[in-house]
Amino acid sequence: MAKMFGEMAVFSGRSNRPLAEAICKDLKLTMSEADMIDFPNENIFLQLKCSVRGQDVFLIQGLSVPVNRNLVEMFVFLDALKRASAGRITIVIPFYAYGRSDKKDQPRVPITARLLADLIVTAGADRYMTVDLHAGQIQGFFSIPGDEFTAFPILSDYLVEQKIPNAVVVAADLGFAKKARNFARRLDVPLAFVEKRRIGNDPNAQALTIIGDVENKNVILVDDEVDTAGTLVEAIQLVKRNGARQIFSVCTHATLSHPAVERLRAAPIEEFVCTDTVPIPPERHLPNFKILSVAPLLAETIARTHAGRSVGEYLHDTQ
Amino acid sequence: MAKMFGEMAVFSGRSNRPLAEAICKDLKLTMSEADMIDFPNENIFLQLKCSVRGQDVFLIQGLSVPVNRNLVEMFVFLDALKRASAGRITIVIPFYAYGRSDKKDQPRVPITARLLADLIVTAGADRYMTVDLHAGQIQGFFSIPGDEFTAFPILSDYLVEQKIPNAVVVAADLGFAKKARNFARRLDVPLAFVEKRRIGNDPNAQALTIIGDVENKNVILVDDEVDTAGTLVEAIQLVKRNGARQIFSVCTHATLSHPAVERLRAAPIEEFVCTDTVPIPPERHLPNFKILSVAPLLAETIARTHAGRSVGEYLHDTQ
Amino acid sequence: MAKMFGEMAVFSGRSNRPLAEAICKDLKLTMSEADMIDFPNENIFLQLKCSVRGQDVFLIQGLSVPVNRNLVEMFVFLDALKRASAGRITIVIPFYAYGRSDKKDQPRVPITARLLADLIVTAGADRYMTVDLHAGQIQGFFSIPGDEFTAFPILSDYLVEQKIPNAVVVAADLGFAKKARNFARRLDVPLAFVEKRRIGNDPNAQALTIIGDVENKNVILVDDEVDTAGTLVEAIQLVKRNGARQIFSVCTHATLSHPAVERLRAAPIEEFVCTDTVPIPPERHLPNFKILSVAPLLAETIARTHAGRSVGEYLHDTQ
Amino acid sequence: MAKMFGEMAVFSGRSNRPLAEAICKDLKLTMSEADMIDFPNENIFLQLKCSVRGQDVFLIQGLSVPVNRNLVEMFVFLDALKRASAGRITIVIPFYAYGRSDKKDQPRVPITARLLADLIVTAGADRYMTVDLHAGQIQGFFSIPGDEFTAFPILSDYLVEQKIPNAVVVAADLGFAKKARNFARRLDVPLAFVEKRRIGNDPNAQALTIIGDVENKNVILVDDEVDTAGTLVEAIQLVKRNGARQIFSVCTHATLSHPAVERLRAAPIEEFVCTDTVPIPPERHLPNFKILSVAPLLAETIARTHAGRSVGEYLHDTQ
Amino acid sequence: MAKMFGEMAVFSGRSNRPLAEAICKDLKLTMSEADMIDFPNENIFLQLKCSVRGQDVFLIQGLSVPVNRNLVEMFVFLDALKRASAGRITIVIPFYAYGRSDKKDQPRVPITARLLADLIVTAGADRYMTVDLHAGQIQGFFSIPGDEFTAFPILSDYLVEQKIPNAVVVAADLGFAKKARNFARRLDVPLAFVEKRRIGNDPNAQALTIIGDVENKNVILVDDEVDTAGTLVEAIQLVKRNGARQIFSVCTHATLSHPAVERLRAAPIEEFVCTDTVPIPPERHLPNFKILSVAPLLAETIARTHAGRSVGEYLHDTQ
Amino acid sequence: MAKMFGEMAVFSGRSNRPLAEAICKDLKLTMSEADMIDFPNENIFLQLKCSVRGQDVFLIQGLSVPVNRNLVEMFVFLDALKRASAGRITIVIPFYAYGRSDKKDQPRVPITARLLADLIVTAGADRYMTVDLHAGQIQGFFSIPGDEFTAFPILSDYLVEQKIPNAVVVAADLGFAKKARNFARRLDVPLAFVEKRRIGNDPNAQALTIIGDVENKNVILVDDEVDTAGTLVEAIQLVKRNGARQIFSVCTHATLSHPAVERLRAAPIEEFVCTDTVPIPPERHLPNFKILSVAPLLAETIARTHAGRSVGEYLHDTQ
Repeated sequence: MAKMFGEMAVFSGRSNRPLAEAICKDLKLTMSEADMIDFPNENIFLQLKCSVRGQDVFLIQGLSVPVNRNLVEMFVFLDALKRASAGRITIVIPFYAYGRSDKKDQPRVPITARLLADLIVTAGADRYMTVDLHAGQIQGFFSIPGDEFTAFPILSDYLVEQKIPNAVVVAADLGFAKKARNFARRLDVPLAFVEKRRIGNDPNAQALTIIGDVENKNVILVDDEVDTAGTLVEAIQLVKRNGARQIFSVCTHATLSHPAVERLRAAPIEEFVCTDTVPIPPERHLPNFKILSVAPLLAETIARTHAGRSVGEYLHDTQ
Repeated sequence: MAKMFGEMAVFSGRSNRPLAEAICKDLKLTMSEADMIDFPNENIFLQLKCSVRGQDVFLIQGLSVPVNRNLVEMFVFLDALKRASAGRITIVIPFYAYGRSDKKDQPRVPITARLLADLIVTAGADRYMTVDLHAGQIQGFFSIPGDEFTAFPILSDYLVEQKIPNAVVVAADLGFAKKARNFARRLDVPLAFVEKRRIGNDPNAQALTIIGDVENKNVILVDDEVDTAGTLVEAIQLVKRNGARQIFSVCTHATLSHPAVERLRAAPIEEFVCTDTVPIPPERHLPNFKILSVAPLLAETIARTHAGRSVGEYLHDTQ
Repeated sequence: MAKMFGEMAVFSGRSNRPLAEAICKDLKLTMSEADMIDFPNENIFLQLKCSVRGQDVFLIQGLSVPVNRNLVEMFVFLDALKRASAGRITIVIPFYAYGRSDKKDQPRVPITARLLADLIVTAGADRYMTVDLHAGQIQGFFSIPGDEFTAFPILSDYLVEQKIPNAVVVAADLGFAKKARNFARRLDVPLAFVEKRRIGNDPNAQALTIIGDVENKNVILVDDEVDTAGTLVEAIQLVKRNGARQIFSVCTHATLSHPAVERLRAAPIEEFVCTDTVPIPPERHLPNFKILSVAPLLAETIARTHAGRSVGEYLHDTQ
Repeated sequence: MAKMFGEMAVFSGRSNRPLAEAICKDLKLTMSEADMIDFPNENIFLQLKCSVRGQDVFLIQGLSVPVNRNLVEMFVFLDALKRASAGRITIVIPFYAYGRSDKKDQPRVPITARLLADLIVTAGADRYMTVDLHAGQIQGFFSIPGDEFTAFPILSDYLVEQKIPNAVVVAADLGFAKKARNFARRLDVPLAFVEKRRIGNDPNAQALTIIGDVENKNVILVDDEVDTAGTLVEAIQLVKRNGARQIFSVCTHATLSHPAVERLRAAPIEEFVCTDTVPIPPERHLPNFKILSVAPLLAETIARTHAGRSVGEYLHDTQ
Repeated sequence: MAKMFGEMAVFSGRSNRPLAEAICKDLKLTMSEADMIDFPNENIFLQLKCSVRGQDVFLIQGLSVPVNRNLVEMFVFLDALKRASAGRITIVIPFYAYGRSDKKDQPRVPITARLLADLIVTAGADRYMTVDLHAGQIQGFFSIPGDEFTAFPILSDYLVEQKIPNAVVVAADLGFAKKARNFARRLDVPLAFVEKRRIGNDPNAQALTIIGDVENKNVILVDDEVDTAGTLVEAIQLVKRNGARQIFSVCTHATLSHPAVERLRAAPIEEFVCTDTVPIPPERHLPNFKILSVAPLLAETIARTHAGRSVGEYLHDTQ
Repeated sequence: MAKMFGEMAVFSGRSNRPLAEAICKDLKLTMSEADMIDFPNENIFLQLKCSVRGQDVFLIQGLSVPVNRNLVEMFVFLDALKRASAGRITIVIPFYAYGRSDKKDQPRVPITARLLADLIVTAGADRYMTVDLHAGQIQGFFSIPGDEFTAFPILSDYLVEQKIPNAVVVAADLGFAKKARNFARRLDVPLAFVEKRRIGNDPNAQALTIIGDVENKNVILVDDEVDTAGTLVEAIQLVKRNGARQIFSVCTHATLSHPAVERLRAAPIEEFVCTDTVPIPPERHLPNFKILSVAPLLAETIARTHAGRSVGEYLHDTQ
């Protein structure tokens, strides 16, 4: 197999350093460092602490809160790497922001998910890696090659181990219907949906219905992201009213914006299963949280990308 | 309101000339013409028959069969318009091809829907207009401004007029779940799904299930496109087995590849309601077809685009 | 004179709305509005409240604190305008951030001022306008046409009116030497410099010297920006030790990062003269502040740009 | 010599698989494979069957009939290779289409040969290789590096071996005059031309004249391409009327559109000498056809390109 | 007809100011002026003397000697116009340099004619106009729209008026064969060629032959350009040896590099007919020169381009 | 350390061949050659004499007189290298022209320093290297990575060796104030300035003042470039009038346009210390010239760039 670039170097911005460290540990590699300082005027100063000339650089930077700081830091970091003559720059984005801004579904709105992809390329990225985009089509927003991985096999493997009897997978968002079907197939259980329908022209008046059967079943609610947990909590109330027993909540990205933690604490959830694509500080970590790591997945694909070995085969075997 | 470009000129490629003529009729405009000749070696010769210097040109060319000819003809047409110094070129694509190739859902496949968008821009388009993309995110594949319209209000208005009692909207494809929900809301009827799940690792072994209730109901099967009608016919059989009464099939794009017409002829469909985004030659026109025209929609938005008047407001009122 | 685009529309992001309102008032124009909402996950939602099809749009958004939010909001706003088919988009940046990151003066640092220019173009700007860049060369970082204005004539006109006897202009930063010379020429007074020189290899050990004569003189300290006021206060102490009498501090951009206000309150400054390119909230407004507005300057140049009339002539007359 | 990329991989589209196989055989390399399927709606599905990460990929795809299918397939193939992270992609185009659409020689026509070059680059090619372009200037239509080879030395070597006495080279198209001169020089024989001149303003009324001497000579008619063979047959009649003896027809690209085979069968041609840049199916293969292969030429240049060895020297020695 | 840009403004670089003045006179327009100064270090300083905001600017600058100065001046001029916010910039290049560097006909040479086109676009041109390119394909080197005009109708009209009896058109360069044919057709006279063939491998040993009949005829030698007149003088000697009577030399571009004037003075030429695309200073002006102006042609097409009227129709009528 | 490209190859244009030869000697490398011919029409013909396929090419070409020829030759050379499939092309520009055209400090002027950077990238450069730009911000005009080196450590090391007693560094241009400060710090001597101020509105009436103390001191006048030496000679007269003793003139780039040599010959300069970034022909070489070579600096950084070793560390150690 060909090794096309210089040594591998892994850098991390400030968005999710624990994940970056776990990846480097898996890669048995010392993380490359950079000074990152917020000046009093909030301008970010950044200086790489080692040469990257010709190297095969991976920069790990997710787009969770503080989103704007993390985004601008990503741009600045990419520019520094490019102007320092890195051989190839792969931006690793464990969590991609603005995933819901992926089309003009109202007049005169931006398509921010496409905009970000263009800005990332302008700033200097040669390739990208990311995990569970809100819509797979966002891949096509990038003009550079890249790989989207899914953490759902990690999540479903865990649930299979839990041997939940009489389970049903429920998608709380119809936009997630197809992925929920695939998830249900992995667990070999049936599927149901929560339909949220606006009533009249009032955007706040909404009717919720269950399509499919949840009565006397243990419900596994799946989504790509749990943010304020508002939709999740509504869905839990609905399935409970329809006779559901235990509730499991499963997602890749636990962004947990306020008041998510309070809502989750109050909700009758058996287990909240997520990954570490977004860092969850200890104070937001509830007893029923199960956080699975995507570090082995990302480490292996980084290693294969660097070595020019097939990523597709690995994903096929594991995903 | 500002009029920013020269006179409006509407051209048509060979893919859907009846629609282009209907649009011009609505616009009370004589269609601008071009010679288009296939040489014996299949190379397309194209020459505009009038000056387009500085004009505000709209080229209507859909991407139905023959797809490759229509696509290359679109590129050649755009190049001719650009090199003839058109002031602004809007490509109007009533039916966009390769909509299902919108992400890498398998290793080592292209994202052809993004590729086409890039090629169209390279060939010379300044703006685009299109109708009911397979995924709204394809808007974000374009680096140029544009508008996607939906024909579903036209379709739902027609069905409301039919006063179908005890109806249920059924989506045969889970990827269409959200749009089916919106459609059901317009008709104010419930929603159900056909779930197609692969069994084991055999891609051909599939189980179909109904999620939701169709018993004794008049079923309205909706999708963006009906191609070979294979999925449609399976869905019809399934809902029939589950006690459905009358069946209506509704879609924007009736591409009707072989053997769609034979299947539709044999299927117990009350009415097949579609639009003219794809031309349906008379010999494929079954007695239970109802073809609604998108020409008024496209004509009005072309007129507004040319005049610099709001398209969003018009869509809000009508859609 | 030619009017090349549709109607003029002026929008404002959230960075400096008072300035935008003053500009619109001068232009006798109602500001165009957009919804701007920070979602709980900090993602910015933006929707234009009126059509901009073909219009000649000016978006006013400076890059003061919160810098990252203002920057991302600028990108998102530009994308919305572009995809809403604005005829021409001029980004008006009263204060440009990252002006000191304008070259690689250390190894492995970015050139963020160039990066921003590229990102702004990628996001959709067709032209730019800005005021007193940290280095005039930043104009050349833009690949789009634009205009940099200087507020120094406004500042010097004010000082001339104050009839300060026996004055000397002092530049606290040698990088500002040439502009300080021009400023001194407008006031027709002599010039001196504060030289800051690192001692040995310790970056924190610095020697300050006066080059030129300040004894018994009224000192006018000029710079493009006062941020934490650290350099300014050192310079004041130095000129005082060298026999200066009254001190005036003059700058275009009063970014006033912490602890600037405390420092300015404690310093023996007769008057602190600046402009409104950066908004100064009332609670930071000290009694000896004199804030001059750049709104008439920007309003006139926006009007001339829209009408296709010469901006250079106006600047020549006033600057 | 440097080897800059990963392993070499040679793929072939469906346009000229026999040539691709001959090249791989010469390279002693197993061809890399891809699934290529035409869906019922004519959309092309393509999936690479092996990893190309970092590899030095050569895709062989000519643009003979079906031209549009072959062109779109080329674009889709390039996109799949690019998104699968190939290290370098060289498109090998044994026969380039639209060569006669290389300038605006009439108002309002496209320059399709330039358009294709741009589309090929947009789709993902890093380099190109091609054989005997209709005009050498088409090289300059590509913004990427590349090599044009000529098969005329292969053709002239063959003719020299035939020891044709008293020969004259005749160009049937004045645009081929210079290349015909070079060909005549290789054979060390004189040169003559067929002049085709339009009479009056009727584009169909044409006068043919011989410029130069063919009487009692064996005529070798050369051109880059024989398509419908109409011009060729007219030229044969003319030289025969002017006293020519035996006729040899020589070209690189035997595209042979209808009714070329019928015309060639009927014409008094001693031998029709061409290459395999365009596949000639057995049923179109006449007894007097001599097809020389460009496979060794392309194989050697592919090997040299991959190894970073000089192509120019090889061409100088052989061409 | 639409008028899409601001007022028309015509500027001229220093390469061919007499032509630019003649064009402005035809347009009844005062030429717009710019200061152009060569600093002692040869850097060119340029400043436009009037505003061009939004205007429809035509910059006339040919690429004759001093070629490098004229080329760099063109780039600098374009940049000044772009940054001064011209509405549209058309570069008018009466004579395009490097026309013979239009393909890689030897290994490791540039394609300078394409390079220039790219540089011109980078510098800021939106459109181009030019006259009689060495190869029409150079049109395709531009990624911007443009028009190539031919001066041959002007030249042939003049010759028709001269009523030269028993004439024959002779092309001294086989690359000019097709255009010579068209020229002969306009004069309704026969055609002949000078064939120049290298002997052996010595690039300096060349054999010249006449193909066609010139005996007792008045020979009209045509080419696009006469540079050193070496080829021309060889051709004259050859046709004279073959019995030609009077000699007329006709070309569009009389670049007349040393020692062209000496050679032309010594040669038995009845009349040397050319145009003013390249300025001929009075001291190089021989008594038998007839210089026809392209100013009316360029003025009319500039006027039509500005007004958005058809150029193709005008050319069809006149060319 | 990784070696990412093929063999290193160093080429030189005609601008500063002695420097290129010194660099190659330091690198113990035979310079790669190209034919460069000025045709009679001044078009430059260029052909590389060896293959560069995949190689890591460094082209040395400064932009001193003849500037336009050297610039166009650089473009043509880059195009030839790119089309000959060089692996990576680094343009080494020992002296960059048009450094003073780095902003629009007057209306309607170009920013030629940015324009050149764009043209160089368009022509094919992948990276750049240069020495002592007139303004460091010009680095940001390049969209490609690169390195600016400074020769001032070479110059200051030399002056330190000279042990000049009682010295003062004087900057004759306030735009050079900050660099002069750094230079003074290296010599550990004080700093003074020449202030040149326009009087009234007459651009030719200027007053010169010394800011700082030069009485009885040995003055070291520093600047980046000495061109006509006009400013230098004025500064010498001024410091002499203010009591200076010996005068040393120091600069990186001795472009020495007419009448610099005459002025320098007449001026009371102890020593004129410069580098070889611009070639000084023997006839312009005065007895008090000391020319220090940048060849070792450029050779080492070329070697490190090729090997992928840190350039920053080397510069930190030496600069």
